[in-house]
Amino acid sequence: MKALLRIPSISTLPEHAGDVRRAAQFVADELKRIGMENVRLIETAATDHPGGHPLVYADWLKAGSGATTVLCYGHYDVQPAEPLDEWKSPPFEPTERDGNLYARGAVDDKGQMWMHVKALESLFAANGGRLPVNIRVIVEGEEEVGGEGIARFVREHGDQLKADVAVVSDTEMFAPDLPTLCVGLRGMIYTEIEVRGARTDLHSGMYGGAAPNPFVALAQIISKLKDADGRILVPGFYDKVAKPTVDELKAWKALPFDEEHFRQAEVGSCELTGEPGYSVLERIWARPTLDVHGMPGGFIGSGAKTVIPAKALAKVSMRLVPDQIPVETFGAYKAYVESIVPKGVEADVRLIHSGDPIVISTDNPYVKSATEVMREVFGKETVFVRGGGSIPIVGDFVRELKTPTLLMGFGLPDDNLHAPNEKFHLANFHRGIESLIRFFSNVGA
Amino acid sequence: MKALLRIPSISTLPEHAGDVRRAAQFVADELKRIGMENVRLIETAATDHPGGHPLVYADWLKAGSGATTVLCYGHYDVQPAEPLDEWKSPPFEPTERDGNLYARGAVDDKGQMWMHVKALESLFAANGGRLPVNIRVIVEGEEEVGGEGIARFVREHGDQLKADVAVVSDTEMFAPDLPTLCVGLRGMIYTEIEVRGARTDLHSGMYGGAAPNPFVALAQIISKLKDADGRILVPGFYDKVAKPTVDELKAWKALPFDEEHFRQAEVGSCELTGEPGYSVLERIWARPTLDVHGMPGGFIGSGAKTVIPAKALAKVSMRLVPDQIPVETFGAYKAYVESIVPKGVEADVRLIHSGDPIVISTDNPYVKSATEVMREVFGKETVFVRGGGSIPIVGDFVRELKTPTLLMGFGLPDDNLHAPNEKFHLANFHRGIESLIRFFSNVGA
Repeated sequence: MKALLRIPSISTLPEHAGDVRRAAQFVADELKRIGMENVRLIETAATDHPGGHPLVYADWLKAGSGATTVLCYGHYDVQPAEPLDEWKSPPFEPTERDGNLYARGAVDDKGQMWMHVKALESLFAANGGRLPVNIRVIVEGEEEVGGEGIARFVREHGDQLKADVAVVSDTEMFAPDLPTLCVGLRGMIYTEIEVRGARTDLHSGMYGGAAPNPFVALAQIISKLKDADGRILVPGFYDKVAKPTVDELKAWKALPFDEEHFRQAEVGSCELTGEPGYSVLERIWARPTLDVHGMPGGFIGSGAKTVIPAKALAKVSMRLVPDQIPVETFGAYKAYVESIVPKGVEADVRLIHSGDPIVISTDNPYVKSATEVMREVFGKETVFVRGGGSIPIVGDFVRELKTPTLLMGFGLPDDNLHAPNEKFHLANFHRGIESLIRFFSNVGA
Repeated sequence: MKALLRIPSISTLPEHAGDVRRAAQFVADELKRIGMENVRLIETAATDHPGGHPLVYADWLKAGSGATTVLCYGHYDVQPAEPLDEWKSPPFEPTERDGNLYARGAVDDKGQMWMHVKALESLFAANGGRLPVNIRVIVEGEEEVGGEGIARFVREHGDQLKADVAVVSDTEMFAPDLPTLCVGLRGMIYTEIEVRGARTDLHSGMYGGAAPNPFVALAQIISKLKDADGRILVPGFYDKVAKPTVDELKAWKALPFDEEHFRQAEVGSCELTGEPGYSVLERIWARPTLDVHGMPGGFIGSGAKTVIPAKALAKVSMRLVPDQIPVETFGAYKAYVESIVPKGVEADVRLIHSGDPIVISTDNPYVKSATEVMREVFGKETVFVRGGGSIPIVGDFVRELKTPTLLMGFGLPDDNLHAPNEKFHLANFHRGIESLIRFFSNVGA
């Protein structure tokens, strides 16, 4: 796994395209080595998807025609590692400390995807080169940039991923030692707002007072996206938001969740924010949100430069919940932003990528099987939670392939996903492998 | 001059400190070469001013004890050159095109300072190594970062700069071929607002809806600094703003100024902005303003990163006009910003540097002399204007040294100061030298 973590397969940065491909090849080679068959890279680049990263596919379908088929999904791409100076060990030099493995991708998702590889390797070894179940493996390299390639593959060649159940290990446990299935994910739309004022950068002494300032304009726009309480002001934004069921809300209230601990230990801010009238878990699992990730442009060096920048950009994303529809929500947002552009500037609103929100039914034998094997490994009953993040492909598995999907993840809440010092608790890596071995055997029996 | 323009003496960037010193030494060597005496670098670095850049001093005081003494001021430091990709020729490779010399510092202020050097060189050559007037030259390397070093030198050793009149060529002509004296300058305060939310960068999927977003908070703060019309909302901000005199306003109305041409040719935005009820010239010369120069922090790469940044910064400056007092205005601004910090985040408001606004009396013989020589060179009457930018030291010359100061600049409105493709119109470079030769001769007569 460390060799894979050393490859900086940052899918959003074009200069790392070679590393992304190297990671794909590495995964393919390992799948072949452990005994998987029909191993191949599937190219996703197309004229309308330039720079697409390859999928890795493998299968082993010799358990018999009546046997259960499991589709294992993971992704080998990672988020950028910035800010680099906050990492205690280099992001692409996996380092063990205190029972954790630190690296970008340690838990999201190279490390968790590797549990599947290791579980299959064990089963091949224990069963004389055979598996107790039919297995398909699909590993993508664009999860962190919207997963367009795999979405198209599922639409166009979904039959090649035909399975009875899909297993995705790209989520976290609710608390240490508490086995968890995630049964809902927020979707998202990731956008850019570009605001242009003057033709070129201007001296603020000579033009200040007459030339439009795109950062001020952008700040005015952003300040009208959310009210002081965090309620999103895009008209119609909440119209299709479905409430969680009464049972679900009751179960969430029973979870071992300490808001003050969450604020202090995880967030570390002086106060939590968000919509009044909703618990923290509701706010991060079942309510849509809007965040600004950065505002490129202008002068960002140290010291002082008295420039009125010609343009300013804001990277703005919204997390969506069932039953919001990304393309619809983006349309409403774009129209709203265009309606509040201050005088003197022009604005472009662009959709960078999107993913559907989903809720997954728990009413199937695979959920039962998963909770059984995790009870054996962890000694505790599984809790059902939702996730605040997106795994775009899960919606496609559920909707396009009609495949029941288990989000069976073994990360921890403090694993620093997408942040400096991402880690994977090694005990969970091993318990994850053990759970998967038992699950594959159990559904194959 | 080209050799000097090749030195990237960017005073705000610590990594260019060596270049800044190299530029100072270059200027000193040239002053010595043309015949100036007592040439020396004056260090400004001090424990409370680390990284201070040297002053260059030279004089020639042999015109006789009753002769007039002129203090020539300029600066050899420059603004950063970003955004580099918008330069048609490299910023530190001076390039002639269409009668202009393009380079960072071409007009602000290396090129204009060089007019003084060339005028003095001509006079030395024409007068057998003598000048018709006593001259002191002071050239600083911190004008673009607030001029703290020279301000202190003026306070502590002002007698060493004793003169009857100071000549500063760091401004522009109102229009091509129209000789111009600038008789007012806006002051400024340059500030940073730092907003901190979570302890570390967080995944917006996992924490969005509960964790504070510092960019959203900063946008909310900025949106409350100015109203939609551009009126600054800091309480008391306009209390000490002095109106221009009736005569001054009348003279400005008579200037050849076409607002639509200014919008199209200089600014290039779809509309001009600023306070209603004031002409464009009033807004850029006699009204205070507030601009945001950039908002460092967060994710600024291409593509998508779903991070809630731990902190965000805004570089915010205000241009001040007589009789606003920078330290007072900063105090009011800081208190106001602190009063509007949204929940969940903490904010620091820092003053980076400041400069006093000034108006200069036109009631002295040197103004008369300057208008005469420029009439000879340009064939037109001089117009009196104000400048929207700051030259911090001018306030010190006027207030501390009680020296009448002529802002006799030969730049043009489209010279792209502080912006890509800064240039100096070479015809003006030569007419500037000619005007200075005549002025030095005239006041020495």
